[in-house]
Amino acid sequence: MADPITFYFDFSSPYGYLGSERIEAVAAGLGREVAWKPVLLGATFKATGMRPLTEIPIKGDYARHDLLRSARKVGIACRIPSRFPFASISACRAFYWVEEAYPAKATDLVHSLFRAAWQHDQDISAPEGVIAVAEGIGLDAAEVKAALQSPTIKQRLRDEVDASLAAGVCGAPFMIVDGEPFWGHDRLEDMADWVRSGGW
Amino acid sequence: MADPITFYFDFSSPYGYLGSERIEAVAAGLGREVAWKPVLLGATFKATGMRPLTEIPIKGDYARHDLLRSARKVGIACRIPSRFPFASISACRAFYWVEEAYPAKATDLVHSLFRAAWQHDQDISAPEGVIAVAEGIGLDAAEVKAALQSPTIKQRLRDEVDASLAAGVCGAPFMIVDGEPFWGHDRLEDMADWVRSGGW
Repeated sequence: MADPITFYFDFSSPYGYLGSERIEAVAAGLGREVAWKPVLLGATFKATGMRPLTEIPIKGDYARHDLLRSARKVGIACRIPSRFPFASISACRAFYWVEEAYPAKATDLVHSLFRAAWQHDQDISAPEGVIAVAEGIGLDAAEVKAALQSPTIKQRLRDEVDASLAAGVCGAPFMIVDGEPFWGHDRLEDMADWVRSGGW
Repeated sequence: MADPITFYFDFSSPYGYLGSERIEAVAAGLGREVAWKPVLLGATFKATGMRPLTEIPIKGDYARHDLLRSARKVGIACRIPSRFPFASISACRAFYWVEEAYPAKATDLVHSLFRAAWQHDQDISAPEGVIAVAEGIGLDAAEVKAALQSPTIKQRLRDEVDASLAAGVCGAPFMIVDGEPFWGHDRLEDMADWVRSGGW
């Protein structure tokens, strides 16, 4: 099989959520797999001097409108969480632990965490919220709790965030396939066209 | 005929340029006309605390790459001007004057100014550059020069910029049709789908 599509996202990114619901089907259509890369956009915002879209005057109103309109268009349930933006560091750590310890559950955890926040308005900012979601897919609460405090996992996340910045990730979702970068839920079709056509 | 599509842009906006090359065909397909609204994104950036995309660390590199890739995809000649971003106040004033004095030439002026900057790397930041482009479409240099200093035209531009901020314009191109806002060259198709389907 050809190289996977690396899919960078932040669990707190609304368009990252929309992209997460669609990327597997797009990738499958291209004969690719998805390499999930949860990161912390706070680091990106720091490096770029930007802020979350919805916090920006004027742009925020448009962004909220466009997000819900985009979700309706592609038929994805979506509501903006009561607490938004929210900290996603525990969710990220849980992912990288599961990816190592129980790789077969990694994709399930991505969707479960995203949907908890973006469909069911569950608070996944604190460890307790993440542990509850992990339990929901059959993981052991005590094991997850320990993993969230693991120095190895903490370092793994720092390394992944650094690597994403070095790779030029400047927002979410951000996809890289065969070295070509695509930023935005609205670039999924472009990315698919690019892979199918060999570029332009 | 149904209401026109209001197309807000800055002559210094790269995606505004791409949109300007395509909006008339999209509008015609919907039985609509285009109402051109050149504005100054500097005012938007001030209100939103943003900066031109290409000036933002990391994001700028991606934006330049995406711009040229997007232009190639839709078959539009595009090169990033040597001086970018550039002041577009004279170009805007020329447009609003022509719109009043020689409305039949208004669309031609939009395209001529945009292409001067984005295809031929001509400097249209100073009055001289704008006057040269205007002469190229048969306008009188002395008349244009006087118009660029006209208090009425200066005020008209200020009013248009204020109106665009009040309308929620937060970037370029920004389109409003039947009260529905769409931001971005990459929302042209969505806008067309929206009008055709009556929304979703």
